[in-house]
Amino acid sequence: MKVIIVGGVAGGASCAARLRRLDETAEILMVERGPYVSYANCGLPYHVGGKIEKESSLMVATEDTFRGQFAIDVRTRCEVVNVSSELKTVELKNHVTGEVTTEKYDKLVLSPGAAPIRPPLPGINLPGIFSVRTVPDARNMREWLDRGAADSSGMNSYTGYQTLMKPKRAVVVGGGFIGLEMVENLVHRGLEVTLIEKLNQVMPPLDPEMAILVERYMTKHGVRLELNDGVAEFRQTADGSLEVLTSSGKAHPADIVILAIGVRPETNLAKMAGIEIGQRGGIRVDEHMRTSNPDIFAVGDAVEVKEFVTGEWSLVALAGPANRQGRIAADVIAGRNSRFRGTQGTSICQIFEAAIAQTGVSEKTLNQIGDTDFEKIYLYPNSHAGYYPGAKMLAIKVIFRKSNGRLLGAQVLGEDGVPKRIDSFAMAIQMGCTVYDLEESELCYAPPFGSAKDPVNFAGMVAADILRGDMPQSHWNVIGNEFLLDVRNPSELAVETVPGAINIPLPELRSRLGELPRNREIFVICRSGQRAYYATRILLQKGFQVRNLAGGMLSRSHAASSH
Amino acid sequence: MKVIIVGGVAGGASCAARLRRLDETAEILMVERGPYVSYANCGLPYHVGGKIEKESSLMVATEDTFRGQFAIDVRTRCEVVNVSSELKTVELKNHVTGEVTTEKYDKLVLSPGAAPIRPPLPGINLPGIFSVRTVPDARNMREWLDRGAADSSGMNSYTGYQTLMKPKRAVVVGGGFIGLEMVENLVHRGLEVTLIEKLNQVMPPLDPEMAILVERYMTKHGVRLELNDGVAEFRQTADGSLEVLTSSGKAHPADIVILAIGVRPETNLAKMAGIEIGQRGGIRVDEHMRTSNPDIFAVGDAVEVKEFVTGEWSLVALAGPANRQGRIAADVIAGRNSRFRGTQGTSICQIFEAAIAQTGVSEKTLNQIGDTDFEKIYLYPNSHAGYYPGAKMLAIKVIFRKSNGRLLGAQVLGEDGVPKRIDSFAMAIQMGCTVYDLEESELCYAPPFGSAKDPVNFAGMVAADILRGDMPQSHWNVIGNEFLLDVRNPSELAVETVPGAINIPLPELRSRLGELPRNREIFVICRSGQRAYYATRILLQKGFQVRNLAGGMLSRSHAASSH
Repeated sequence: MKVIIVGGVAGGASCAARLRRLDETAEILMVERGPYVSYANCGLPYHVGGKIEKESSLMVATEDTFRGQFAIDVRTRCEVVNVSSELKTVELKNHVTGEVTTEKYDKLVLSPGAAPIRPPLPGINLPGIFSVRTVPDARNMREWLDRGAADSSGMNSYTGYQTLMKPKRAVVVGGGFIGLEMVENLVHRGLEVTLIEKLNQVMPPLDPEMAILVERYMTKHGVRLELNDGVAEFRQTADGSLEVLTSSGKAHPADIVILAIGVRPETNLAKMAGIEIGQRGGIRVDEHMRTSNPDIFAVGDAVEVKEFVTGEWSLVALAGPANRQGRIAADVIAGRNSRFRGTQGTSICQIFEAAIAQTGVSEKTLNQIGDTDFEKIYLYPNSHAGYYPGAKMLAIKVIFRKSNGRLLGAQVLGEDGVPKRIDSFAMAIQMGCTVYDLEESELCYAPPFGSAKDPVNFAGMVAADILRGDMPQSHWNVIGNEFLLDVRNPSELAVETVPGAINIPLPELRSRLGELPRNREIFVICRSGQRAYYATRILLQKGFQVRNLAGGMLSRSHAASSH
Repeated sequence: MKVIIVGGVAGGASCAARLRRLDETAEILMVERGPYVSYANCGLPYHVGGKIEKESSLMVATEDTFRGQFAIDVRTRCEVVNVSSELKTVELKNHVTGEVTTEKYDKLVLSPGAAPIRPPLPGINLPGIFSVRTVPDARNMREWLDRGAADSSGMNSYTGYQTLMKPKRAVVVGGGFIGLEMVENLVHRGLEVTLIEKLNQVMPPLDPEMAILVERYMTKHGVRLELNDGVAEFRQTADGSLEVLTSSGKAHPADIVILAIGVRPETNLAKMAGIEIGQRGGIRVDEHMRTSNPDIFAVGDAVEVKEFVTGEWSLVALAGPANRQGRIAADVIAGRNSRFRGTQGTSICQIFEAAIAQTGVSEKTLNQIGDTDFEKIYLYPNSHAGYYPGAKMLAIKVIFRKSNGRLLGAQVLGEDGVPKRIDSFAMAIQMGCTVYDLEESELCYAPPFGSAKDPVNFAGMVAADILRGDMPQSHWNVIGNEFLLDVRNPSELAVETVPGAINIPLPELRSRLGELPRNREIFVICRSGQRAYYATRILLQKGFQVRNLAGGMLSRSHAASSH
């Protein structure tokens, strides 16, 4: 059996190595258009930023590894320029020699990835505008940043101003994962950074009110944030620097521009092969990673996958799923029955001293597909026991089925303990956990690492309280003419009050019930929602109509400023 | 309804607060023998060590909180000295006034905790010997450590040598959680520490070969470790300091001694009440935390609980389960049907720069109960992508059912990323995960936080490889006269070799198969087991009888030195 694998990074490399382990006799040819296989593309922003100093650190496995350990024929700088699914052949172009050869395959695996979107805007090809995809991309950015433009083309007006003109101002276009990682790394290098994002929020997988918390970290670190604005044109100015003009008419000066607008699945070869493309523009595969042609498989960023929670087709450019898909394709080619279970979109991104992570489905997505059988909660627990030094507040949003308590999604932001929580939620979603299960989860606790009631338990308890009817809840964006009861202590009110809210501190509540209306719904407010819950319990049992305002004042600030 | 709760710390305090939330009308009396309620006993070692500087930080909730927010009658320094389950009364002794009163209850909740074991050894009551249970215990230790013995009793010979005699040498007796935390904290304070442990390992919930990794951190930080040795006697020496004499005849000088031998459930009240005590010596309760007397509940360290994985009764002194049990007892008293699902023993302990954590069942426990339907694996992955700075090696042992792949237990040690992994395993065990599920888990990944194949996935893959027959495995302690094949590179052999092993580097293996025997089983060795797996795959397919030596050289060092 001869298997040709197109693309030698995450999905392709995993597939090749796995296939060799399963089948010593298969002839495996892995072709990669670029100069390197199996490099750490997730590390590129950090290499540009200097946190990963050596380029060689990015090489996870070399061509030699694949040849020596796996007996795989690897060809880099070699591109598949044509596919014939009838003849079961590919045409390979060697970019060093220019030679074109034809190879037959029994099985073909497409792992071409997704290409950074470069919209055909005026000036898009000016020097100093970069995308972030390959090791040479990172190398070019580093050179540009280290030395100004002097060495990069010899064609632009920086020449001769090498020292003076070292890039100081960066514009990053696009606020997704790569964009945010690039922002952080450019700030780390000392640049002034402007982030331009067409949407009303950064980090599209997040719900907007959680994205605001990310945006605060951006602003805190001096990043200029331009939301709701798209790029219209790039220009070179008289002094040789760049200018980014936006749809709203603004002009942002820049010495370097990073395009991180998003990626588009590479489907040229798939189209040549006549295989089905999905509605999202990715290669359509079944759960065995098989395309509409039984001898052609596809994996990684180029394929559409099913969302685990919703069952909807989606495009997810993440390394973890790509690796698993490569493995699964290899299994199936070797005659096994492995299947890809879909993606939860579990991801995490470092945002300066914080991390933002998510898993499962967002409220936004549920709204888009018209699914209304869910409830959401917000909580703000400490990352570990508050009495042990270094505890930081986590901001957590959890989404769950109203009808059966099943966990649907979670978003967690904080400066400590984020991976611990998001992975618990991720595992919980995978296993069909309900919020009642989360109440009873036994997670690790010692003062430096957690709390006797872990934030994950706490999330389960809050959600279960709602589902059991123990704690009716409302959200800040649906306040009408309810009676607002603030149960915080007077000292806390000095900082911020809610207009129209009446203050009765929780310890006085039982003795001051006479001050509350019985003919109107009461919304209860505290700092994070916990004391308001206690108050809600008292009032419910005393016959009042009452709801806890979800997440208290801590939610109010981002719910209210939600774009 | 009048409910009396005996004990005002984790289980009792949780029960009281929850019960009030569920029932505004219940009369709730919480009595606590000590001076404080709801204090952070898990923080005591860190307060002694100075990491938690202020004693007030340890007070999670005060009596005022319970009275004001929860309308709970709290009495501290108040001890239940008698229980009559026929009359449904308790006798309370006020330790301030000496007064004894009788109170009737409708429901009684026992949360007396477990007392540190103080064996009746000669000298056990000498000044300078401390247990770690209460805030006053910690205060006494701090005073002793800060000022020598001058202020503590006035009765011993330190007096007059205050400056000179500031304690420098500590002996900690017992290598469980509290013992290890005390060791770390005493080292942190600059003391020379000796740890004496009767068993052949520290941290009894761990398997011994994993405990060795903990012991190495102890030794690295200058702790003298005396395993397999018990204390026989404590003596005061001529210069007023202490001496700890052991069964083996050694004498360890000490200026302070910490007893952390273990705890014993407090069952006096339970016995007075005539309720059933279990075979492990704890109060027997059903899944609703109800004792053999339907009006008496018991929670926390004093009760026996079922191990989630094995179904065996056990004593588990952990704050998380205690809190959940308190909540469950309150639910049941309030007429709900909550149940405790048993304990997984999920725990974590900081060991200097590292953390050691476990969840589920250990191999030791499975052996004790005669359960042989399991397999174990060892792996040593990086805590996050190796190319991003700060990655540390994790040591992971995973135990799973041979017959169906179900995850049974995990033990994880490392200097980074331990909570993320143990909580994934903990959630997985709770939800009945198999190793095949772990292969497909979608956990968070970005270079600072994980890997595209997370260590948890990796564990699933290794385990599944074994169960699918893709990778026969053996362990270091069962080597007989097999042919030992070392597939590491020659440069690695310079550091350490295995006597009798033949070296064929992995890349040369396919061309040197003729050097291998076909009539003998081959055990393959590499650094961590990964390349040996690749070699195993090649050899299996070539018809050799072959097994991977689990965990490679990294396992060998602790498997071999296992006591």
